[in-house]
Amino acid sequence: MPKISNKGQQMPESPIRKLVPYAEAAAAKGKIIYQLNIGQPDIKTPEVALNAVKNHDIEVLSYSHSAGFESYREKLASYYKNTSLPIEKQDIIITTGGSEALLFTMGSITDQGDEVIIPEPFYANYNGFATASGVTIKPIQSKIEDGFALPPISEFEKLITEKTKAILICNPGNPTGYLYTKEEIQQLADLALKHDLFIVSDEVYREFAYDGVKHHSIMSIPELANHAIMVDSVSKRYSMCGARIGCLVSKNTEVITTAMKFAQARLSPPTFAQIASEAALDTPQSYFDEVIEQYTFRRDLLVKGLEKIDGVKVANPKGAFYCIAELPIDNADDFAKWLLEDFEDDNETIMVAPAAGFYSTPNTGLNQVRIAYVLKKENLERALVILEKALKQYNNKA
Amino acid sequence: MPKISNKGQQMPESPIRKLVPYAEAAAAKGKIIYQLNIGQPDIKTPEVALNAVKNHDIEVLSYSHSAGFESYREKLASYYKNTSLPIEKQDIIITTGGSEALLFTMGSITDQGDEVIIPEPFYANYNGFATASGVTIKPIQSKIEDGFALPPISEFEKLITEKTKAILICNPGNPTGYLYTKEEIQQLADLALKHDLFIVSDEVYREFAYDGVKHHSIMSIPELANHAIMVDSVSKRYSMCGARIGCLVSKNTEVITTAMKFAQARLSPPTFAQIASEAALDTPQSYFDEVIEQYTFRRDLLVKGLEKIDGVKVANPKGAFYCIAELPIDNADDFAKWLLEDFEDDNETIMVAPAAGFYSTPNTGLNQVRIAYVLKKENLERALVILEKALKQYNNKA
Repeated sequence: MPKISNKGQQMPESPIRKLVPYAEAAAAKGKIIYQLNIGQPDIKTPEVALNAVKNHDIEVLSYSHSAGFESYREKLASYYKNTSLPIEKQDIIITTGGSEALLFTMGSITDQGDEVIIPEPFYANYNGFATASGVTIKPIQSKIEDGFALPPISEFEKLITEKTKAILICNPGNPTGYLYTKEEIQQLADLALKHDLFIVSDEVYREFAYDGVKHHSIMSIPELANHAIMVDSVSKRYSMCGARIGCLVSKNTEVITTAMKFAQARLSPPTFAQIASEAALDTPQSYFDEVIEQYTFRRDLLVKGLEKIDGVKVANPKGAFYCIAELPIDNADDFAKWLLEDFEDDNETIMVAPAAGFYSTPNTGLNQVRIAYVLKKENLERALVILEKALKQYNNKA
Repeated sequence: MPKISNKGQQMPESPIRKLVPYAEAAAAKGKIIYQLNIGQPDIKTPEVALNAVKNHDIEVLSYSHSAGFESYREKLASYYKNTSLPIEKQDIIITTGGSEALLFTMGSITDQGDEVIIPEPFYANYNGFATASGVTIKPIQSKIEDGFALPPISEFEKLITEKTKAILICNPGNPTGYLYTKEEIQQLADLALKHDLFIVSDEVYREFAYDGVKHHSIMSIPELANHAIMVDSVSKRYSMCGARIGCLVSKNTEVITTAMKFAQARLSPPTFAQIASEAALDTPQSYFDEVIEQYTFRRDLLVKGLEKIDGVKVANPKGAFYCIAELPIDNADDFAKWLLEDFEDDNETIMVAPAAGFYSTPNTGLNQVRIAYVLKKENLERALVILEKALKQYNNKA
């Protein structure tokens, strides 16, 4: 039998997917599972986006431009300009999800064996994209005690070698919910300029900033124009994860020209999803106001609830819709499985994402979980009750 | 300024895209261009597919399964079974276009520096996927004199090294229109088994077989189960190029498990496009009968027309909707540019794809062009008249 590639063998399995068989088995037995494990919001997609697709008048569903509809890129540039970012149509390539923007970025700026520095914990699929691209991730730990703030720049400098091509951040962070300050973004910019590195900023949660705190985009620093690459997506902003539309944004024309070659090889991003995404730009502000209010409420409910549970530590997230919680247990992988397989309260349980999968350093974050606050009030409240009971029972059994 | 990757620099530009600026300039001057250069059919997308999207009742556009809708995979397996292929739901991963299926395949079976043998001329984007994956393509020339039939197996054996992981074919072929015979597919299967190689078969044009000739899929050979990987797409079958839905099919569970890790990293294929593609499986047979009749008619018109032009040689295609024509010129690149920039007949011209971009061997196919017969009768007839006049004028000017 012919052999699978080494790359294929090394491709990490998503830390969340590992639990799916246990969840399926539990669900098959009729157990109700509150899913705190994935970033699939329950928020409704804006009607203006859904209706645009319902009202399409396509007769021949043909390829679009490889960079996406021109009309969409134009409107998207205006949208960014409204958030004070100097982004023009020609700085944008529409991609199939933020995922493809990350793959095009890695392809455009890294070769086999190159290194990218990423503060950990980080979005687990960065591991997959790095493996697929032959890139080595160099992690720098951010700490729950600091609320997952940017690690000291001196720590980054220690890791920079000839092979370092970029620093990748997620702002606000999945899984930490951390929102970088203006000073932190400036520090990263200075570092990138000093060492001539790219800064890749995954800003798919850019609208999800709470308590009136402003989001600071990597694209807001003029002197970083040639070094900054932004990755964005409609998935979270409009609760349109299934559209699979994102974009790669850079003022560096060499980056855009190169990424376009990857874009042309795959022909075009999906047409129906572009129709929905372009229309979504007309979503009224009231939609976002309600969404932010909803998530702020949920965050407060969750964080306060977690803080009340004995032995639980949590960093209060300022953005996105995740938080990392430290639990009074040794191994969150075990605990997460146990919750699905062995625990039930009134035939109900919860599903959480063990945080170790978000760390690149082995044996790190073993007692942490990522909790997504994507459920409505009653369900979040119930999930907190279940977590508290489960922790007691889990620790008593030991 | 930070440097672009070597990989990015090596990414080939599509041979068709190179002409786009010339075409845009010509169009800006009001010149009418008959596009024989791209495989974008003018055939209408089946209504059943378009209506399914119009009638969607989605409220939250959420991620789908990373392998695609279960219902779609089930129905697709039935569709293959109806063409006598023993394909089950679990052998299928729905991808974002055939392009992504090719990328997942390369990622799953090749590492940096590995080799894949491909009969040339071949679909130009294979070069891009190979570069993106760090794979070296080893071409074997198929010849216009033989109608682009499979080169002798002894030629393949000469190229097989320790680094050879797979043989990639396109059946029926883009750009040749060649449809492999049962004997040729069996010869490739025997070779793959002898050397323990994968055979990757791009069958996106599988329905486009003319003159009652049967298409022979790589999946039809039971003893090749562990060695065969099929790539398919809805783009051409249902004239749904903009959907961006394809699939990777294999009975080799290790291949599927590995490709699934790549699929999970990018989360899911596009939802609206899956709705359209699943519905498209209900397209009535009459649609295909008409399409095949239409393409057969166009092919006959084109090939007979080309054969009548002085000095033009053409291999009669048995499938897909392309043919390669040899023209009485030295450099098709120059000729194609000249057609757009300097030639006009009654303010009209044609756009063709120079064939050199479909060859991996340098300086090959320089006097050949690929012509797509995706235009209606009147336009194809007019395009033939323009080609004949243009060739005369081009050769007189020299």
